[in-house]
Amino acid sequence: MDKISVFCPATIANISCGFDVLGLALDTVGDIMTVQKTKEPGIRIAPIKEQDLPTDPEKNVAGVAGLALMKSLDYKGGFHIEIQKRIKAGSGIGSSAASAAGAVWAINELLGRPYTPLELVPFAMEGERLASGAPHADNVAPALLGGFTLVRSYAPLDIIRITSPRELVATVVHPQIEVKTSDSRKILKTTFPLQDGIKQWGNLGGLVAGLYTQDYELIGRCLVDHIIEPIRAILIPGFDAVKSEALGAGALGCGISGSGPSIFALSKGRKTAENVGRAMSKVYDSTGIAFDLHVSEINPRGVKPL
Amino acid sequence: MDKISVFCPATIANISCGFDVLGLALDTVGDIMTVQKTKEPGIRIAPIKEQDLPTDPEKNVAGVAGLALMKSLDYKGGFHIEIQKRIKAGSGIGSSAASAAGAVWAINELLGRPYTPLELVPFAMEGERLASGAPHADNVAPALLGGFTLVRSYAPLDIIRITSPRELVATVVHPQIEVKTSDSRKILKTTFPLQDGIKQWGNLGGLVAGLYTQDYELIGRCLVDHIIEPIRAILIPGFDAVKSEALGAGALGCGISGSGPSIFALSKGRKTAENVGRAMSKVYDSTGIAFDLHVSEINPRGVKPL
Repeated sequence: MDKISVFCPATIANISCGFDVLGLALDTVGDIMTVQKTKEPGIRIAPIKEQDLPTDPEKNVAGVAGLALMKSLDYKGGFHIEIQKRIKAGSGIGSSAASAAGAVWAINELLGRPYTPLELVPFAMEGERLASGAPHADNVAPALLGGFTLVRSYAPLDIIRITSPRELVATVVHPQIEVKTSDSRKILKTTFPLQDGIKQWGNLGGLVAGLYTQDYELIGRCLVDHIIEPIRAILIPGFDAVKSEALGAGALGCGISGSGPSIFALSKGRKTAENVGRAMSKVYDSTGIAFDLHVSEINPRGVKPL
Repeated sequence: MDKISVFCPATIANISCGFDVLGLALDTVGDIMTVQKTKEPGIRIAPIKEQDLPTDPEKNVAGVAGLALMKSLDYKGGFHIEIQKRIKAGSGIGSSAASAAGAVWAINELLGRPYTPLELVPFAMEGERLASGAPHADNVAPALLGGFTLVRSYAPLDIIRITSPRELVATVVHPQIEVKTSDSRKILKTTFPLQDGIKQWGNLGGLVAGLYTQDYELIGRCLVDHIIEPIRAILIPGFDAVKSEALGAGALGCGISGSGPSIFALSKGRKTAENVGRAMSKVYDSTGIAFDLHVSEINPRGVKPL
């Protein structure tokens, strides 16, 4: 096989109580990437129509991630990468992670699968390092593994794939405002009250239990963030109203996707998730802020061939 | 039925990464309690041979918990309670919780089970309020429900029973030194670094996943406490050496039981747990500090009739 096209999923990181550790992959929101083996060594990236992104592989997250993988294999050939960039940069649903994960997954496939998807995570993290300065894994892990993932530790890297119930459906509203990840990091405090921490890890433990036992009500009760959301919500105009509408329409829970500005909700069943989407949309309809709306099942396998 | 004898299990709270939320019940360590219906209203407690504990029901945790249950049912009769107190007070393995849980479980049974074990938790918590000033549930919940429990929230009370693998065996060493719960609370800081919190909830999420998936190695990797143990360990002479010996002998993890001074380890299989017990004992043997040693499977049902 010399050429492959893959779907590179968008991802929701943090998921209320799981700041910096939890993430999930979406099934119907993502980029398309076509990767072809070339005799010419190195990586070349075709101009990206949808967004103004660098094509220099050293400055492109897909390029950097792919080069890291090739280097580890001491591979002397090359690849041509074409990206249909459907996930907007800065949306908070893992745009850079999708590109990084897609590139390493496709290259690994074309080279005969020397690595497992789990083993590809560190290479994709190099793309994240380029994008945000920090090689975080909470988006690339679900993008590569699918489902819910927990990044338990970075040193050593320890990623746990968590089974989730089939009827869980995500709704994402992306208001077209800019929130820089670096800004949303800056406003966080470096210390937190122990009492808030106890609530937070109680909720994360409960959420993991709810996912394994398919207890939707428990999942809903645990989708609460006592530490980050109260600080970051201020950066997202309309957040409180959107959340209130989502919960009123039957969502199990609602919070900030990654560092925002996208807002996610999780619901039981597609019909509820669509109702939730309509309710969330109303808020931005009334303010005149442009937005995208996505409704998606959880993607059980991450990057996949088309 | 007018009379019942029950086994009231000792419990391990906190379990490294689950400060104030996680607990588990032991199977072979506990009190024996015999409760008998009486025509005389109220609760009478027989003198307790093993320990100097109050028999005034208003000053005894079993009495207070039982009275809270009777009051909620508006029950006008009475009970005579006889306690064989095998769990030492102040050991850090839920001595007060065993008495409180046993009393409400037995009285509930004698009254025809008006409440489920889960519904009994708030009454048992009244015993804990008497014992420590705080109506905490991290010992009474596993004592009443068995297995691992997660106290996700207090307002409203939300307790989750977590399935655990059958081969998990606890080793507990109780050095005969006094650590007051109030002292071990006082030395805790009221705030903690966000970076430590991220590690802590990553570990708690991973531990819950490991319990559901029977992944002993994952359980072991998650039995780490970045927040409380580094502060409290100083109150327990020999803690670092005991922990090091336990891990060296094959324990999955080792930490402080409750607020100490007991030290617990979890292992896969009884044989390893016994080896771990020998290794932990060596430390106190060499210092001359007297200690008790317990090796016990996890108790799957909590308080049980004899």
